[in-house]
Amino acid sequence: MNRGVELAEKLAVPRGGSILLAVLDGLGDVNAPGQGTPLEEAETPNLDALTRDGALGQLIPVAVGVTPGSGPAHMALFGYDPVENLIGRGVLEVLGIGFPLCRGDLAARINFCTLDDDGIITDRRAGRISTEKCAELTAVLDTITIPGVEVMVRPVKEHRACVVFRGAGLADGLGDTDPGAVGLAPLPVEAPSPECRRSAEVVGEFLRQALALLRPQPRANGLLLRGIAANREYGSFGSRFRLNPAAVAVYPMYRGLASLLGMSLAQPAPENLQDQIGAVHDARARGCDFVFLHHKPTDSSGEDGDRERKKAALEEFDTALPEILKAGFDVVAVTGDHSTPCAMKMHSWHPVPLLVHGGFQRTGWNSAFSERQAASGSLGTMNSMDLMPLLLASAGRLEKFGA
Amino acid sequence: MNRGVELAEKLAVPRGGSILLAVLDGLGDVNAPGQGTPLEEAETPNLDALTRDGALGQLIPVAVGVTPGSGPAHMALFGYDPVENLIGRGVLEVLGIGFPLCRGDLAARINFCTLDDDGIITDRRAGRISTEKCAELTAVLDTITIPGVEVMVRPVKEHRACVVFRGAGLADGLGDTDPGAVGLAPLPVEAPSPECRRSAEVVGEFLRQALALLRPQPRANGLLLRGIAANREYGSFGSRFRLNPAAVAVYPMYRGLASLLGMSLAQPAPENLQDQIGAVHDARARGCDFVFLHHKPTDSSGEDGDRERKKAALEEFDTALPEILKAGFDVVAVTGDHSTPCAMKMHSWHPVPLLVHGGFQRTGWNSAFSERQAASGSLGTMNSMDLMPLLLASAGRLEKFGA
Repeated sequence: MNRGVELAEKLAVPRGGSILLAVLDGLGDVNAPGQGTPLEEAETPNLDALTRDGALGQLIPVAVGVTPGSGPAHMALFGYDPVENLIGRGVLEVLGIGFPLCRGDLAARINFCTLDDDGIITDRRAGRISTEKCAELTAVLDTITIPGVEVMVRPVKEHRACVVFRGAGLADGLGDTDPGAVGLAPLPVEAPSPECRRSAEVVGEFLRQALALLRPQPRANGLLLRGIAANREYGSFGSRFRLNPAAVAVYPMYRGLASLLGMSLAQPAPENLQDQIGAVHDARARGCDFVFLHHKPTDSSGEDGDRERKKAALEEFDTALPEILKAGFDVVAVTGDHSTPCAMKMHSWHPVPLLVHGGFQRTGWNSAFSERQAASGSLGTMNSMDLMPLLLASAGRLEKFGA
Repeated sequence: MNRGVELAEKLAVPRGGSILLAVLDGLGDVNAPGQGTPLEEAETPNLDALTRDGALGQLIPVAVGVTPGSGPAHMALFGYDPVENLIGRGVLEVLGIGFPLCRGDLAARINFCTLDDDGIITDRRAGRISTEKCAELTAVLDTITIPGVEVMVRPVKEHRACVVFRGAGLADGLGDTDPGAVGLAPLPVEAPSPECRRSAEVVGEFLRQALALLRPQPRANGLLLRGIAANREYGSFGSRFRLNPAAVAVYPMYRGLASLLGMSLAQPAPENLQDQIGAVHDARARGCDFVFLHHKPTDSSGEDGDRERKKAALEEFDTALPEILKAGFDVVAVTGDHSTPCAMKMHSWHPVPLLVHGGFQRTGWNSAFSERQAASGSLGTMNSMDLMPLLLASAGRLEKFGA
């Protein structure tokens, strides 16, 4: 655990300034020699104005060289040790379709696959069946009943679906049944420890019934489970830091993750940045003193390797910023959960630029919000887990440590 | 515990260069846009000359975002983990009046208060009685006797006083009796664990006798105890780092803290910076190879929000520096325990500038001692606990680690 976070939990008081944490997903990027990054090339006059009156720094999401998924990257920003609080893949997948998970639920991702007569995998994606077909198959599997357990199967996209088991004693610890290659049979479900014997029984019974139901299918006659994970308790963000937090996100996974941590969600769910502006104002109006605003297009464009779209996503946020800030915040932080360099088309380990405005900063050091200026800003280089103590301190919400 | 400190304890040798650690209390500051910090605006030609031949860096006192009290901030500079070695508030208060604490003493701060006929607090400061009145009341309370325990009550200022219990088995762990608000009765003294049962008995008996003695008082007819703390053993600074250390401080609390760590104190106690210059020379003359010099006015002016006075306090130190350096040191470090920004009028979490001169540095990187130049100095950003290993190394007092 991070020392600053541990102390911040003890020193936090339920009063002081309000905080906006705007996460531009995948914000950081890299550049070729002679080229700027998307953040350097985008026109972001509002972010640059905040920079001139504020302070820059950069965040290392988990550790030098470690590329995080969205789960650990956000957990670190929220002051949860991303290693000790790793959210299982199945749980994130289910959160991503907006499914209302309960504590103790066991969740897994399903990949429909094609099996030959000997039960050997011949296509790990079942010929990429349509999303409609996926919905049809999951409706069939959703009829499976197992005594003492509620079984819920939902479609995701194409060959991808998910399953949630709800019942007593479903412990974490099962491995994937996906062997990761064609030409092999799916792996058996085995309990590596006595605690997950019940989970293994339930998942095994589900697979037996599911295989029987899928047998008539020409392509999707099998299924592989990945990331089987129990939905743990992570401790309330608001209780830990004495805040009344709200999450304003378009994508279900980020809403789900924030909800796991006890943040209140914007209702109805915003569908775009314009909706999000309104939701930020609503959150302030209902007394929330911490707002997590999630902007996804900076990541999706990076994943697609589309520099122009990433610049546009940055400019879109910059244009919305003045309206967002009218909701009134004492401390404004703009950063990312991780970098998603266009040249890599994936998440990366690179430090993420951080801008903090408000609440007594060493200021006037920088003129524009960019990776390069962030690396020499007055906030320095810190771990993502250091962010919450810094923001709470900036908002005057931490008492002094010791006399 | 910090890895560098652990190794330094093992690698330190009792020979090598001499070290001056000058702590300008509350040194760091922040600036408004378009404004410099006091350190940037002050005329400090001698510090700037050391900077040009030396190296800059910055120290994070405890953790990002954590504002330390003077106790933990100094403990970290001296290479003591400030969380594992948190000095109790009562102990610091008693050190602050120059009281000669012994190991195992139980110390607490007293606030005289006003109670109504039902024992409910109506004024937590007893109408801010005069310091003379305080001395009169503490003289009365000092007559209290408890079998097996020596009870010593001393005035501090206005309604504030302190008490020390000396005897066997007085363990730490009691909570405050101050409920923190008027309209409530003082909290009872309760032992949260069997080890502090004796402490609870002693403190409870003291309070019973004290209330009886104070009953006739019109305003200060009650008392509240805060920060009840045992004076632990912290391990000798000189033994840990193989140094013969001296402390040269005007304020009793810093002398007391240094004394707890086994540093020898300048005698007679210096009353101003001029006295301190002489005391530094005396310490060198009596063979001390490590001198801790504490300069308080940079903090007090910051606490008062007085930028001009903070600049003057910096300039006063700068002017004295050549005379101090004539005492002859191989390595000179100038830093602060924490920041005390004038705009905040309190301690803060901001990194503290550090200047190290002597002993092979990467030099010529900076032209003046300031927060901004320190952030890009060759020493980088480190934790305050990293300072002692760095100074010992610079003085050639650490052996190589491993072959």
